[in-house]
Amino acid sequence: MSWKNLYADRVGAMAHGDVAGMLKLSERPDVISFAGGLPDPNVFLLDEIRDVFDAVFAENGKTALGYGPTKGITSLREWLADKMTRSGRPAKVDECLVTTGGIAALDLICKVLMDPGDTVIVGKPSYLAALHVIRSYQGRFAGVPVDERGMQPEALRSTLEALKGLSVRPKFIYLVPSFQNPKGVTMPGSRRNRIVETASKYGVPIIEDAAYRDLRFEGEAPPILASLDSENVIFINTFSKIFNPGVRIGWITAPASFIETLTLAKQGQDQCASTIGQYAALAFASTGLIKKQIAGAVKTYRQKRDAMLAALEKFFPQNAHWTIPEGGFYTWVTFSDGVDTDSLLPQAIDEVSVAYGAGPAFFYDRGGKEHMRLSYSYVPVSQIEAGIERLAGFLSKNRVF
Amino acid sequence: MSWKNLYADRVGAMAHGDVAGMLKLSERPDVISFAGGLPDPNVFLLDEIRDVFDAVFAENGKTALGYGPTKGITSLREWLADKMTRSGRPAKVDECLVTTGGIAALDLICKVLMDPGDTVIVGKPSYLAALHVIRSYQGRFAGVPVDERGMQPEALRSTLEALKGLSVRPKFIYLVPSFQNPKGVTMPGSRRNRIVETASKYGVPIIEDAAYRDLRFEGEAPPILASLDSENVIFINTFSKIFNPGVRIGWITAPASFIETLTLAKQGQDQCASTIGQYAALAFASTGLIKKQIAGAVKTYRQKRDAMLAALEKFFPQNAHWTIPEGGFYTWVTFSDGVDTDSLLPQAIDEVSVAYGAGPAFFYDRGGKEHMRLSYSYVPVSQIEAGIERLAGFLSKNRVF
Repeated sequence: MSWKNLYADRVGAMAHGDVAGMLKLSERPDVISFAGGLPDPNVFLLDEIRDVFDAVFAENGKTALGYGPTKGITSLREWLADKMTRSGRPAKVDECLVTTGGIAALDLICKVLMDPGDTVIVGKPSYLAALHVIRSYQGRFAGVPVDERGMQPEALRSTLEALKGLSVRPKFIYLVPSFQNPKGVTMPGSRRNRIVETASKYGVPIIEDAAYRDLRFEGEAPPILASLDSENVIFINTFSKIFNPGVRIGWITAPASFIETLTLAKQGQDQCASTIGQYAALAFASTGLIKKQIAGAVKTYRQKRDAMLAALEKFFPQNAHWTIPEGGFYTWVTFSDGVDTDSLLPQAIDEVSVAYGAGPAFFYDRGGKEHMRLSYSYVPVSQIEAGIERLAGFLSKNRVF
Repeated sequence: MSWKNLYADRVGAMAHGDVAGMLKLSERPDVISFAGGLPDPNVFLLDEIRDVFDAVFAENGKTALGYGPTKGITSLREWLADKMTRSGRPAKVDECLVTTGGIAALDLICKVLMDPGDTVIVGKPSYLAALHVIRSYQGRFAGVPVDERGMQPEALRSTLEALKGLSVRPKFIYLVPSFQNPKGVTMPGSRRNRIVETASKYGVPIIEDAAYRDLRFEGEAPPILASLDSENVIFINTFSKIFNPGVRIGWITAPASFIETLTLAKQGQDQCASTIGQYAALAFASTGLIKKQIAGAVKTYRQKRDAMLAALEKFFPQNAHWTIPEGGFYTWVTFSDGVDTDSLLPQAIDEVSVAYGAGPAFFYDRGGKEHMRLSYSYVPVSQIEAGIERLAGFLSKNRVF
């Protein structure tokens, strides 16, 4: 039986395993890995989470073990509607759909919106798992540069105009406006307005991925895009960063008619998100534990961010440049043209046991070789300086500096 | 913003909400619903499951709350490989992939195998959620009759031959060989051999869905199809019936190269199944609790099956016919030609507060109006006779009998 003869065309469109490869690097215990975007397990309030599960079993045990409604349990959707309303995007229960995490949310949206060959607008660079989902729907990409303040509105406008000239109507614009993955940058409020207005003018919806938004170390949070245009912005978020990834719970907030169609698609994706995970997320959120955990997580990740930036200052030379994240998991380093982070990666792992995210994984066209993503979220704070020192030594030896 | 203008073609291919509709009927507390295929929440070993979660938090808490490998945690995959080997299909760890339940398993397989317009062979009738998944991949259907002994091998052969004559190579044959959903029938061993040989001869893989297999009330279990041809049969199963649906854990066993491609696709579906759910499933299975729960579940569902069959004998007339399930959740009733269970359903709910699964939901061509699926799994045993009596009265009044 030759399986490959039976494969769908989309298999050819899927990239080789960038995501899996990065996660794998984090598994080798001898490697200091700045590659994956994993949370620090020490931020989970383990005892409190165990108590929350106990309470769920005591109060809703039989229901929590059964199938739930495809849209999610009503009490959690009520909490989500309230959270969205407090975030400036007034939402009703029927505008909220519970998903099996953030990627499953994007998978559903693509299932409803994308035919093979459809165009999607993404940042240069972008979240690599999102690129993988879009590829699995045989999407074409149009790229818009992401600078220190996020996606550039003028470049978005000219891209939309150029596509219009070609009679191409993109299906959506995918964005991570706060603490972007991979650059760590945050779009200021004024630019958010321009992005939202431009997208609306061209009739192209925005998918706003807010995965890191609640992990802000300092400064004021700009408004979510969905608060600026609740009709044209589809908001997706996950409990992975604010509760834990192990329960696989995320959500989508969008106009009710679109949520209905997503629900129909979800019946063919996984029927419903984990019922017990939903009850646990709700209990964790509604008793205020989520705020407690976020406060601890912010403290931990801020400390790690500081250690990372200090180590970069200490060991990386003037001709390298990196972003200063105000939250989230990542900083993004840019070297001189000609540097090839992709081909250096296996060598860095072999020679100095340090891993990073090579730039091309985050570009749909696999450009961006002169960049690397450094994730400070997972590595113990005590190892960050040593890791950066070793990486700097390796890069220097290989004449990157 | 008119969302519908942006929808992908596959949205038009998705059926209206048969699945959601059925689940909804089960929610109305005044209705005795034989419609949904829900488990009886009383079979869950609630206290033991709570203890299992406690133990997971104590032993693997931080890991269980994190992301897991896309293929599933290794220890659970080892248990699955062992279970498959004991079931007669010797399997290695790299032949097992953990999924977010059974439907997510089928979604993944379709993602890898199906292009729009591809043909899939299904039973007449078939599991309605599986039809929904295949429709969401814009599949075409070829139907093979299912009789009292499952899918008919000779009809399968002639269908494959006819498709070959048209130069159509079907992507797979989807089957529920034990306690079929919706008919409740089980394919005997001799027929399993013929089905597997026929599929192999024509080079068409079989998807064997074993969701109900462990819930056998009496008699000997025939071998799983995957034990007869481990190369050409993709085996899917779920923990929903033997642990609980709330954790959303299922699995696929298939040749390793195919598992690799499914894993790539899973990175774009939901990244990984619930880590905590996986650890809990493993603990429940490996400590023998799964056997204890299955024994209790078999006792409960056998009693309900008996109550259902006795009530049918008592209240349904000679000219109705129903299947005698040796396990699982369903019996299938056939009336005279001309009866329309579809149009009678809303009336039955209104007039006598009883719901059932109307035949057409289980036929890809929406034929089969003279049939209904009766699920005895969820309704309390004390209400089964009353429900069937009311249904019989309603049907008699409407001249079905």
